[in-house]
Amino acid sequence: MNSEVLGYLIDLDGTVFQGEKLISGAAQSIHKMQEQGKKIVFLSNRGNVSQKQCLEQLKLHNINVDEEQILLSSTVTAQYIRNYYPLASVWTLADQGLRDELATHNIRLAKQPEEAEFLVISLHEHLQYSDLNLAFKAVMNGARIIATNADKMFPNEEGPAFDVAGLIGAIEATTGKSPEIILGKPSVFMAKAALTQLQLPPEKCMIIGDSPDSDILLGNTHQMKTALVLTGNTNKEQAQRLTGMRKPDYIIHSIADCMKEI
Amino acid sequence: MNSEVLGYLIDLDGTVFQGEKLISGAAQSIHKMQEQGKKIVFLSNRGNVSQKQCLEQLKLHNINVDEEQILLSSTVTAQYIRNYYPLASVWTLADQGLRDELATHNIRLAKQPEEAEFLVISLHEHLQYSDLNLAFKAVMNGARIIATNADKMFPNEEGPAFDVAGLIGAIEATTGKSPEIILGKPSVFMAKAALTQLQLPPEKCMIIGDSPDSDILLGNTHQMKTALVLTGNTNKEQAQRLTGMRKPDYIIHSIADCMKEI
Repeated sequence: MNSEVLGYLIDLDGTVFQGEKLISGAAQSIHKMQEQGKKIVFLSNRGNVSQKQCLEQLKLHNINVDEEQILLSSTVTAQYIRNYYPLASVWTLADQGLRDELATHNIRLAKQPEEAEFLVISLHEHLQYSDLNLAFKAVMNGARIIATNADKMFPNEEGPAFDVAGLIGAIEATTGKSPEIILGKPSVFMAKAALTQLQLPPEKCMIIGDSPDSDILLGNTHQMKTALVLTGNTNKEQAQRLTGMRKPDYIIHSIADCMKEI
Repeated sequence: MNSEVLGYLIDLDGTVFQGEKLISGAAQSIHKMQEQGKKIVFLSNRGNVSQKQCLEQLKLHNINVDEEQILLSSTVTAQYIRNYYPLASVWTLADQGLRDELATHNIRLAKQPEEAEFLVISLHEHLQYSDLNLAFKAVMNGARIIATNADKMFPNEEGPAFDVAGLIGAIEATTGKSPEIILGKPSVFMAKAALTQLQLPPEKCMIIGDSPDSDILLGNTHQMKTALVLTGNTNKEQAQRLTGMRKPDYIIHSIADCMKEI
């Protein structure tokens, strides 16, 4: 299944990790790719962590890559704002990791929600009511909305958990305003960032992930090979029912199987 | 404007209170109603407090009424579950006040979200991420959704604040499920509870509130007189543009004006 593949786009949550736990065989599979000289990027819709945090989590499990090989929706969101709205001030509804990533890209963080030109929404696992209320104030005072991603759930140790779509829904329902752009997978921004990093044509690349809506859709709309793993949000029955642009080329139990010849 | 009115349905937030603060002249106006022998119920979409908490807040400002004269969406929600699903176990996404009100009505609170037959959503000003995640788990495991109310914002000292609609939106966006019933104003359940308490025909009653969508709509759909105050969610310009069932009979600056002859 992989002889023609020169580069891998690898999802993190549900594909490499379940919560903090490494998925069995994931490190070995990635080591094998590295030994065979395959190019790798990790492509994650995580928007609430920084590249640095992510690099350290991988290192902890003996997976050693460069910072540039980690593409998060927070990274791509920061690049987008930096490119198109370099002077804008930004309020966030997200964990500290997003603010770190924005600061790394020299994006101005508003001191008060009322001053913000943009509200950036991402996962916020330390959310309190006041965070929702301040984000609401930002939008009621004219801030436009950007979302790092719009996943409904992410897989953690205890099963599916509440994700960014819920925070977007909360702000939409109270303000009547919706995000004008969602940067994470399956957006063209994530695909381009990955292909630029890999320096490969898409047909030589394979995306491996657990989400038909973000991973498989991105791969299929950009002429990549696609492999759906069953260690995350999708079970075998659901996987076999997929059609159209969400149907993967391969369904494999886990990333551990992707370096086996089938 | 009030000679034919024998009973008043009075909203609380934005009509009697702005946050913790009493609206100027509110107590005097209510005292005058009481002196003239008018019947009164306070009819509030607050679902995150209990009748007892509310009674104490009114007492603090020298407004003395009986517990039965306070009808909250939490009260009416508890009565609804007690009447129609007496054996159901309930999980809540709400402040402690709702759980107190449910307990007063002998409703069983589930120990785990996975066991709950219903999720009841109300305002949760002490919300944390884990509360959203547990509510999400309840619905993903089959719990049906009930909401005490669906207000988008409530007026507090600092202006409009994020309200229940946002929490409903958060759960809808992640689970794809919506509330099957919303008990608060303008529902028939709130109207009936108020008229039963007042023991008056609706045309002898006036509802006074700041919300066209809940107060005025409830009044007009139940043949009551309606007065919109400008001390809450609606300003004069918005008030004058209202049409149809949201158009009030009277627009008054505040509840302080409602006992003046116009």
